[in-house]
Order: sequence, then C-alpha cells, then structure tokens
Amino acid sequence: MRIEAPGPGELAERLRARELTAAPAVVTLLEDRSKRAQARELLAALGPAALGGEAPGQIVGMTGPPGVGKSTLLGALAARWRAGGRTVAVLAVDPSSKASGGALLGDRIRIASDGVGGPERFIRSMASRERTGGLAPATRAAAVVLAVAFDVVVIETVGVGQSETDVADATDTVVVIVQPGAGDSLQFLKAGVMEVPDILVVSKADTGGPAQTTLNDARAALQVLGAETAPVLAVSALPPGQGIDELEAALANHQAQLNVPERRLQSRRSGAMADFVSEYGERGLDAVGGRRSAERLLIAQDPHLDGQSLVELLARAGGLPVD
Amino acid sequence: MRIEAPGPGELAERLRARELTAAPAVVTLLEDRSKRAQARELLAALGPAALGGEAPGQIVGMTGPPGVGKSTLLGALAARWRAGGRTVAVLAVDPSSKASGGALLGDRIRIASDGVGGPERFIRSMASRERTGGLAPATRAAAVVLAVAFDVVVIETVGVGQSETDVADATDTVVVIVQPGAGDSLQFLKAGVMEVPDILVVSKADTGGPAQTTLNDARAALQVLGAETAPVLAVSALPPGQGIDELEAALANHQAQLNVPERRLQSRRSGAMADFVSEYGERGLDAVGGRRSAERLLIAQDPHLDGQSLVELLARAGGLPVD
Repeated sequence: MRIEAPGPGELAERLRARELTAAPAVVTLLEDRSKRAQARELLAALGPAALGGEAPGQIVGMTGPPGVGKSTLLGALAARWRAGGRTVAVLAVDPSSKASGGALLGDRIRIASDGVGGPERFIRSMASRERTGGLAPATRAAAVVLAVAFDVVVIETVGVGQSETDVADATDTVVVIVQPGAGDSLQFLKAGVMEVPDILVVSKADTGGPAQTTLNDARAALQVLGAETAPVLAVSALPPGQGIDELEAALANHQAQLNVPERRLQSRRSGAMADFVSEYGERGLDAVGGRRSAERLLIAQDPHLDGQSLVELLARAGGLPVD
Repeated sequence: MRIEAPGPGELAERLRARELTAAPAVVTLLEDRSKRAQARELLAALGPAALGGEAPGQIVGMTGPPGVGKSTLLGALAARWRAGGRTVAVLAVDPSSKASGGALLGDRIRIASDGVGGPERFIRSMASRERTGGLAPATRAAAVVLAVAFDVVVIETVGVGQSETDVADATDTVVVIVQPGAGDSLQFLKAGVMEVPDILVVSKADTGGPAQTTLNDARAALQVLGAETAPVLAVSALPPGQGIDELEAALANHQAQLNVPERRLQSRRSGAMADFVSEYGERGLDAVGGRRSAERLLIAQDPHLDGQSLVELLARAGGLPVD
C-alpha cells in the first residue's frame, strides 16, 4: 500500500480553509513540470481566491545584493509578523551559482532555525529560472496560491535585475534592500536594471555614519526614477532592532493603498507572457504574431482568467500544442 | 531602381578580405530574425574562419556596473589598440531599461565621438536578450563573425549577471570592472552571480585611497572563486592614464596562453544551447529529452559545426521545425 499524494482538489480545499500544512505539497506540485494538468486543476479549484479578489494575503518581494542582510532582516520581520498573529510563507529564490554553489543557502538555514517552528512559518527554497535569479513560473504560481492561506507571502531574491519577469510583476509590494555605501546597487537602480522599489531599505543602520549618506543617495536615486514617494527606511535587524516597526507599517500602508485585484491582474498578464515565452520560445512569439500582438490578446481576455489559462490561450492562438 | 543589400556570400568574402566596411551590413543581417537563412549562408561561407581556427581577432568581454567607467576605459584602450595599428569592433549590449530608458546610451556616444573615426573602429549598440543584459543570439554570432575581420572585438555589457548565456561563453577573455568601494559588486562576484573574470580591473585609480582597499578585497573575492591567478589591475582612464598599458599586456597575455579553438568550441556549444532554448522554449528542451540529453548531443557532434548548425541539429533531434 502506498500513500497517495493529496490531489489538487483536496489541496485547494485545504488552502481555502487556511490549512497551512498543505503548503509543502502545493509547492511540490507546482514545481513538477510533469504535473501541469494537476496544477491547472488546483488553480481552477481555487477560482477567484487565487486571483486576488477575496482579500488574500499580501505578496511581498524582498530583493538586494548578497551580503546586504536580507535574510536577517526577513527573520526579524517574520518574527514581528508572527508576534502579531500573522502567518508567513517565504519563497527564497536561489540563483544556481556556478561558482560558489550553495553560498546563499546558509542564510536560509539561519531563518529556518531561529527556534520558531510550526506551519505558521513556511520556508521554501525555489530554483530560479536562470542563475541570475529570474523567477520561474512555479514561483509566481506558488506565491499567488499560498496567499490564499497565508497572511504574508514573501518572495526573496538576489537583486541583480531579473530576467524576463520582475519581482514587481509577481508581488504586491517590492522592498529593495541596500547597505551603507551601496554605490553599485544605487547605480544599478538608477539605470533601471534593478527593481524599482515601493519601499527602499538601507540595512545595517547600526553601523552609523555611512548609512545616512546612503539614505541621501537612495533618495536621489529614487528621484531619478520618478519614484520619490517611495519610503526610504534605515533599518537594523540586530537586537534591539531599528526601523523594523516602521518597515512593517510601511508594508501595511502600501497594501492598504493598493488596488490589489488590479495589480494582480497586471501580474497575471505579464507573468503569462513570461511563462509563454519560457515554454514556447521566440518561435512561440512568432506564432502569435509577435510580442505586441500577444499583449493585445492578453488584454482582451476575461480579467478573471488565471495565469495558466492565459498561457494556454496564447498557445492556442498560435496553433501550438497545449499539453 | 533600388540598391540591393549585399548578399551573404559577398559579405563573407569581404570579411575574409578584412574589409571592415562590411561590418554594419553584417550585424544588420545577423540581427534580422527574418533573414535567418542568409545568416546561415554567411556562416557557412565563412567556414572555419568563424570557428576560431584561423587566428582571427581576440574577442574580449568587458562588464561591470553602470557608472564604473567602462566606456571611458574602453575608449582609452581602443585608442591604445588603434595606436598599435589594431582594428577594433565594439558591440555594446544595452539592457532595455524600463525606468530610465536610454540612460546608458550617452556613454556610447562618448566613445564614438572622440574624434577617431573611420572603419577601423566599428561601434554598434545591440539589444540584450532581456533587460538584464543577457546576450542575444545575434550578439554572439556578430562577435565571432567580426573577429574574422577585426583584430579585437569587444562585447561590452552591464555586469549584473547574465541570463542564460554568460559573456564568458561568448568571449575569449572576460574583463570585470569594479570601482573603488565596490562592496556590492564584489559580493555579487563572490556569490557567483557575476561573471568570473580572467582579468579584474579596479577603475578610477586616480581617486587614491579606496582603490587599494578594493584591490585587496578584489583579490580576496577571486580567492573565494578559486580564480586567484587572474590579474587584478588598478586603472585610471583619465589622462595621463594609469594601468592601461598593463591591461593591454594582460589581455595579450591571456590570449597568448589560451587554446582559442577549444574555448570557441565550448562557446559554440553553450551558445547553441542558449539559442535553442531561446528559440524553442522549455518545450523544445522537453522534445530533445531535457538539458542533459541536449548537452550530450552537442558534445557528440563534429567540432567544426557552427553554432547555427548545432541549434538546427538539436531542433531536428526533437522533431521541431527548422525554419
């Protein structure tokens, strides 16, 4: 007798009932390319809940260079959320580094082992599309689906600019983290190679002097981007902590002012485009008459279609095989 | 009467005769997706010359964050090469920035307008695969083809890690440029998200103090990568210049020690893999039995096949349409 993995219908039901123990099986299902049909069933069974219509959890992107203290900050923030009774899922996207292998994974273990266990805090490392940290289709799908059950879903990436899809296209709120003296990151930011932040955090505020200069430089960079209304916060994750409350408040404030269904509709469209190109390549784009034409097709669709359905729609329009 | 664009046979002949005025038409041809058949003809007509076998020019990758002084340095280096009688082609890859648009393009104009004109210095801005600066198939093809006619071909990219293909996979020598105080870039480097350099340059050496610290940090970063034999040079492109001669020598030295045909064979294989995935998507990979199986297929082929032929070979193996 073998133990059957839970089916998509059962998983959807458990997510809608906010049963957090469903999370590992859900992500495993979404990551398995051979189970695309079941993934589709899961999305269909969740219906509008996975479209951002029914007040699901907040999806937060956290991005910045390695060594900037992302994971430590996320640990402090997660502790704060948990203390407030909020459940947290973290999807940590690791660029598969050729050179240093699992260098980034150590950080992840640090969050996981801070003594606060239980299903209220779910952490999963996910493969990136490419080694630069671009989001794989599974990550985007996982975020939306987990937001049905969890209060906060965080996608954590190494911030070197994303390939094809941006973290911004997969999340409600983008937090970019830089450290004191972060000249290079601010250059990347100004050049539009990094994500445009909804909230910009200067980490390691406890180190004093340089943080203030970086705050000023960061505000100047945001002005170049026309994003000067984004809050800029100096944060220290080391006990006693500094700025964590302000960051939590800024996140809540951003979500409160956001038209979530509208933002998620945009996400589904840009995500579907990226997934379509990832699946079918440039020839897929040629088959639907190019990128512009694909975009027009997506915009013309029922706004309640899930991302997977949009990809299939593009494929059918191009006469391409859908499974 | 309309003026016909030169055909692939004529272009190949002119390149082999080192007629540098052929360069613009060659790149235009390679960039046009509707002219893939002619591009193939061009490669076939060039034969082994485009495979790195017949002592063609050196292909150099120069990469680093925006603002680091890449273009100024490249300008100084190009002037040195020209003074030594060497011809230079520069392919500048611009990530198509959503936010700041043409912010990076200004630099390019600076190189182009330094008063040294003529076909001996060819500069072309090329689109990146995605906004992160990943190389498009056309850029790789252009580099190899131009190396038949030019003594040096430089691919210049913004160094934020590349999607799918690395600059290293398209060039003989990778120069990574960081600036004094480049903590973030060195973090990216250590994490394996940036290119592993064959030569590491710390720019703006004229600014004094911080450059020395950065040199030390850079050497430490290279040690983490097991690349401690790569030269680390402090360079200033401002007149009178500093370290430019050393950089020129380091580049010549790297080329002298390199097995060029072997490196270009590797490049063709990894480039073909990237182009195949770009053309046919994940489903293309599925059709050939996955990435590993595709790699085995590539390695089993005649090492004298050009990149385009390798892509077609994979496509045929997967039963996919070739044009």
